[in-house]
Amino acid sequence: MGESRTEHEALSRDFVAELNRSITEHWASQRRALAHLGNEISPMFDALERLSNGGKRMRALLAYWGWRSAAYATGRVPDSGADPVTLGMSLELFHAAALIHDDIIDRSDTRRGAPSVHKGFERLHQREGWHLDAGRFGMAAGILTGDLCLASSEELFGSLSEFSPHFAAARTRFNLMRSEVMAGQYLDVQEEAVGPGYEPEHAVNRAMNVLTYKSAQYSVVHPLVLGALLGGADSALTAGLEEFALPVGKAFQLRDDVLGVFGDPQVTGKPAGDDVREGKRTVLIAHTLAAATPQQREWLGRELGRADLSAQDIDAVRRLMEDTGALAATESLIDQLRVQAEQALRSLNVDELTRAALSDVAVGAMSRAA
Amino acid sequence: MGESRTEHEALSRDFVAELNRSITEHWASQRRALAHLGNEISPMFDALERLSNGGKRMRALLAYWGWRSAAYATGRVPDSGADPVTLGMSLELFHAAALIHDDIIDRSDTRRGAPSVHKGFERLHQREGWHLDAGRFGMAAGILTGDLCLASSEELFGSLSEFSPHFAAARTRFNLMRSEVMAGQYLDVQEEAVGPGYEPEHAVNRAMNVLTYKSAQYSVVHPLVLGALLGGADSALTAGLEEFALPVGKAFQLRDDVLGVFGDPQVTGKPAGDDVREGKRTVLIAHTLAAATPQQREWLGRELGRADLSAQDIDAVRRLMEDTGALAATESLIDQLRVQAEQALRSLNVDELTRAALSDVAVGAMSRAA
Repeated sequence: MGESRTEHEALSRDFVAELNRSITEHWASQRRALAHLGNEISPMFDALERLSNGGKRMRALLAYWGWRSAAYATGRVPDSGADPVTLGMSLELFHAAALIHDDIIDRSDTRRGAPSVHKGFERLHQREGWHLDAGRFGMAAGILTGDLCLASSEELFGSLSEFSPHFAAARTRFNLMRSEVMAGQYLDVQEEAVGPGYEPEHAVNRAMNVLTYKSAQYSVVHPLVLGALLGGADSALTAGLEEFALPVGKAFQLRDDVLGVFGDPQVTGKPAGDDVREGKRTVLIAHTLAAATPQQREWLGRELGRADLSAQDIDAVRRLMEDTGALAATESLIDQLRVQAEQALRSLNVDELTRAALSDVAVGAMSRAA
Repeated sequence: MGESRTEHEALSRDFVAELNRSITEHWASQRRALAHLGNEISPMFDALERLSNGGKRMRALLAYWGWRSAAYATGRVPDSGADPVTLGMSLELFHAAALIHDDIIDRSDTRRGAPSVHKGFERLHQREGWHLDAGRFGMAAGILTGDLCLASSEELFGSLSEFSPHFAAARTRFNLMRSEVMAGQYLDVQEEAVGPGYEPEHAVNRAMNVLTYKSAQYSVVHPLVLGALLGGADSALTAGLEEFALPVGKAFQLRDDVLGVFGDPQVTGKPAGDDVREGKRTVLIAHTLAAATPQQREWLGRELGRADLSAQDIDAVRRLMEDTGALAATESLIDQLRVQAEQALRSLNVDELTRAALSDVAVGAMSRAA
């Protein structure tokens, strides 16, 4: 166990190092490909390099271990076209694009401990003393930079097709992932808009629906299965991986919901209680609304989405989550999901190296502090 | 000539009818593919169906005739994987996505004679009496709906790969088109931001740079050449097509610039002088700034981008464009480009049916009133 721990960690580390090198090279080559447009487009690439340089690489790592599990199961080294680094880059850049657009939608000023992309453009505008509205420039440049990043993700994914015999199945899954997360994000935005008074008894179900497609499938299930499909996995293996990945993905987002209200800003890199100020309709919030008295619900409805909430206001929201049992219910749900994931992992038909690696990813996803 | 006119028009009409049917089917199948997310995502597809139902289909038609010219030149019917309908859909949906995001960036309330997509979502929010800010909901839903449309475009383009032996060359071109137009659009936004006082003697060059990549290459050159590449064109044919398409594309956008200030709102479907209110930095504006006195330039700099300009204000801008000779210079440039395009078309090695069709597209692009 001690040795396989070292071994799978070393494999993950090597993969991430190669991934990071390749992302850096990708932007350098994109800069060259668009050099004929002139130097003025540099701020787009500066922003993309900065943003895609960070992150935990969870999606890429899941793709790598999914790919490796299939390689083990089929008893052969996959062909070079089924390149997990390229798949990982494509997933990480898709995620970066989604973050850029999400931060505009959610009015988030910070991302990965630095200014979010649109905020960075807003500051560029202010620094240069340009004309018209800095905020609108930031939004416009952010939308376009997100679009460019989305195109890069697709370009990388599409480049897999030439070599891999398993590309068609992976393409279908990649298309589904993309559409699901965009539609899931729309559901999320609409849920904020319909307001906290709308059928609170179904609020938990609606929030779980958003969580499943916007987060669990997108962040965990699809990346793992995409890697497996590209590695040539059969339907039994992909079904087993899904059974493991879905509870991990749900717990991952529930942990995120708790951190969004109770997390330490020093560790998360985001202001304390930011989810409440942004008015996010998480499962934790839905549990709170469902368990609250009509008076408490009305009060919480007024607080959610108020950008000017003080530290005391956030504290009051935290107390309501504790007093209604919503926090305990969420933590208990995370525990149940953890047990499900552990059971699924034990019965999964993969080599021990992959099992140890997947266990690490699961623990990281469910127990993280940031 | 009379007969070939009838014949190429009938081919174009049949192609557009098939394209429209296929786009309708595409959204129906996308709705089915995402049915598991629930009915609440319908407004996204309603908006996409409405928007992608309209338009002149210029890009798709160029792709069709490019594909057909290559088929003629190679003396064989291209294989079924090189499907010009699918390529046309992919181009039209890419354009729809770009329009959705552009209308957010430009604050355009109308598109194709109806509310723009983000404005439609804003009105949905108001009609339903939802919570929080209707404008922000419209923007968020618009960004996501544009992303979903972008994904559909890519999904369709990617679906060509399985069959066509010429896919690799087309893919490289499609990737370039996408990156160029997003970076070109960024240059445009940045040009508005740096302001009308920035090196006015180079303003025309900068505006021509934006026009080339954001419009001419994107709207005319790339669609025509993409069709040709997918049809198996060699480099002599694609070079000939480019020589014809580039002046057409430039003239197309210059005509658009003139219509954006002098166009009849009854015909264009946009309010008169909208380009001035949006502060667009067109070649027409650049010519005006370059030829204006410092006082006039300062005055125009204050007017550009003011959303509250009256009909009288717009009239004054029109007069300045006439008095400085900027309008005449733009019309004269369109004439020169028309001559270049006609010369290139005459020496192009294509069948007479294709030549007649390309001539129609060129005339439509350069002389249109809307």
